[in-house]
Amino acid sequence: MPETMQTTALSDGTFELACELIARASVTPEDAGCQRLMMQRLETLGFRCTPLPFGDTENFWAEWGSEGPLLVFAGHTDVVPPGPLNEWESDPYLPTVRDGHLYGRGAADMKGSLAAMVTACESFLRNCEEDNRDPRGRIGFLITSDEEGPAINGTVRVMEWLNEHKIDIDYCVVGEPSSAEVLGDTIKNGRRGSLNGAVKLLGRQGHVAYPQHADNPLHRALPALQELVTRQWDEGNEYFPATSFQITNFHSGTGVTNVIPGHAELLINFRFSTEQTAEGLQTAVEAILEKHAVNAEIQWNLSGNPFITGEGALTEACRAAVRAVDGVETALSTSGGTSDGRFIAPYGAQLVELGPINASIHRVNERVKVDDLAKLSTMYQGILTRLL
Amino acid sequence: MPETMQTTALSDGTFELACELIARASVTPEDAGCQRLMMQRLETLGFRCTPLPFGDTENFWAEWGSEGPLLVFAGHTDVVPPGPLNEWESDPYLPTVRDGHLYGRGAADMKGSLAAMVTACESFLRNCEEDNRDPRGRIGFLITSDEEGPAINGTVRVMEWLNEHKIDIDYCVVGEPSSAEVLGDTIKNGRRGSLNGAVKLLGRQGHVAYPQHADNPLHRALPALQELVTRQWDEGNEYFPATSFQITNFHSGTGVTNVIPGHAELLINFRFSTEQTAEGLQTAVEAILEKHAVNAEIQWNLSGNPFITGEGALTEACRAAVRAVDGVETALSTSGGTSDGRFIAPYGAQLVELGPINASIHRVNERVKVDDLAKLSTMYQGILTRLL
Repeated sequence: MPETMQTTALSDGTFELACELIARASVTPEDAGCQRLMMQRLETLGFRCTPLPFGDTENFWAEWGSEGPLLVFAGHTDVVPPGPLNEWESDPYLPTVRDGHLYGRGAADMKGSLAAMVTACESFLRNCEEDNRDPRGRIGFLITSDEEGPAINGTVRVMEWLNEHKIDIDYCVVGEPSSAEVLGDTIKNGRRGSLNGAVKLLGRQGHVAYPQHADNPLHRALPALQELVTRQWDEGNEYFPATSFQITNFHSGTGVTNVIPGHAELLINFRFSTEQTAEGLQTAVEAILEKHAVNAEIQWNLSGNPFITGEGALTEACRAAVRAVDGVETALSTSGGTSDGRFIAPYGAQLVELGPINASIHRVNERVKVDDLAKLSTMYQGILTRLL
Repeated sequence: MPETMQTTALSDGTFELACELIARASVTPEDAGCQRLMMQRLETLGFRCTPLPFGDTENFWAEWGSEGPLLVFAGHTDVVPPGPLNEWESDPYLPTVRDGHLYGRGAADMKGSLAAMVTACESFLRNCEEDNRDPRGRIGFLITSDEEGPAINGTVRVMEWLNEHKIDIDYCVVGEPSSAEVLGDTIKNGRRGSLNGAVKLLGRQGHVAYPQHADNPLHRALPALQELVTRQWDEGNEYFPATSFQITNFHSGTGVTNVIPGHAELLINFRFSTEQTAEGLQTAVEAILEKHAVNAEIQWNLSGNPFITGEGALTEACRAAVRAVDGVETALSTSGGTSDGRFIAPYGAQLVELGPINASIHRVNERVKVDDLAKLSTMYQGILTRLL
């Protein structure tokens, strides 16, 4: 525990639990005891905890209550590697407070959120007991240790297990760091889909002095690529910005100046709205290449379909819970990268992501405001209170 | 000497000298004694030989006679590396006859030509003596050992030396393998220019999920590249095909699928006719990039300016000399790669390239027809006879 621990104004225990989690160096897919610590705290509250290891990945499912709607907190204990250690101002696994911030790998993504989820449940259930009322539903925890890795043996497998056990999630709050400037200013109520294509353009190699005997795949592909990058795929919709297409990698040639290359390798990526399907995008790309007589082989990889949680009980509870803490008005957003929400939402849950300010995630000197830890716990508790 | 040596019908010594040169493993810039062997033969004829080593490169200049027009045989003793030895049917440095062909590295490019140049002079001067006539001019040899390498310390430096010594070449026959199907069917009377550009396209890196914060240099460059590859630079002219533009290399991105690259590196090449200048092409490329608001840095490298020898005394002597051997009609051509002719022609000489069939050059199992060696010697002798 850092010495500054005692200086925090709010002593709901979120800060302390966040420190204990950060001190466990759980670089993906390692869990390093984080989940055991969380399960101990949850079992004390009456949660039934089920470790669900798959392959190299630690996961657990925890459930409180036996009837009514199920609200699940979802998250991950694994963190990305620290990067260059000499650029960290303090040890990434030694939770350290400076200038009102708690520094450490995972502070914002997402050990602060995990701590806030646990303390939110502690406060909520204690308040229910003090108020002598029964919660109007069940609470779940879906925690994995491979969100930052290949995401194969984590949330995907736990969702299959839940489905087999006929456990349906009604509401899901993912602890991803969604906030931009102020805690709670943004919640993600969906994510765009992400579709990758590995494109191999095929031509015919030859000497640069005899272009008539070669077929430069770069030259041949240019009109098709121009059509792909300038096409307006859609206008987006109420929840999503327009679908975007990017060429992320382009490699052709061996470095010599007198050979026309015989092939070229590209990586392309779509971030796509619910106006599109992966199949539709694939067909469109292939048609454009064919129209321009481009000979290409494409390996498609669907990273995730788009999903959306429209305005409703969950978004309303989130807005009210955020507003109640600091008067912040929340904006709904579907921008940004993917999260494990893509594996949960397709089963039918309303799902949002609400967590700390994301400016420092995946960087050196990752941090979270000390005050935001207790505030985030209060927000999560507010969601519980409003829905259960 | 291979055993089959005695089987050659014509015994002018070209085959034997070619074998002696092939047996000297002179991978560029090595000469391996080839030039000493040539100089010994030429000194016997009365040539004055001057070794001209520059840096790692062996060169020599040899001159016969003291007045009248100067006809120079130019060539190189170095060869390209053998490539995969297991694909050679015989040792690349053990001259071997199979099916009427002499196999070995350099057989066609250009030790067969070097041998034919020497024996042509031997026959020509012996015939003059027998006919009791004086040649009407001088004969020179300009031989280097770095034509297949960087071409810095070879013909370029010898030409500077000749210029300093006020030696002007009137006619130059380069022994490059110019023939396509039949010996002498093609002579090169010029070459296109070659201009390389190393282009760095500059953009701004960013996460693929936030394209609005990035500037993909690939996307930005596509319209400019399309204009460059579709532009009709010229129609060519009497001697040259149209100028051609090729993108030979294209590299961008680090392999990850979620990052928009911040820059891209291209190599481009022009093969250009005498309708263009290197400066004009550079200006045109830069203007097209600027027109499309492409931020780019370009390093230009002029490999060689175009040169041409129009119809005249040298081409006429070549045509007649070729026709006299086998009745073959010669076509003039400026196609193909560069040769050291680009360093000689600018000083004002009429210059052609005439040599063996080029199908096997720079490949495994390089070869020349045994009969073509004596025929080539006779052609070179015919050129000497007609011009001197």
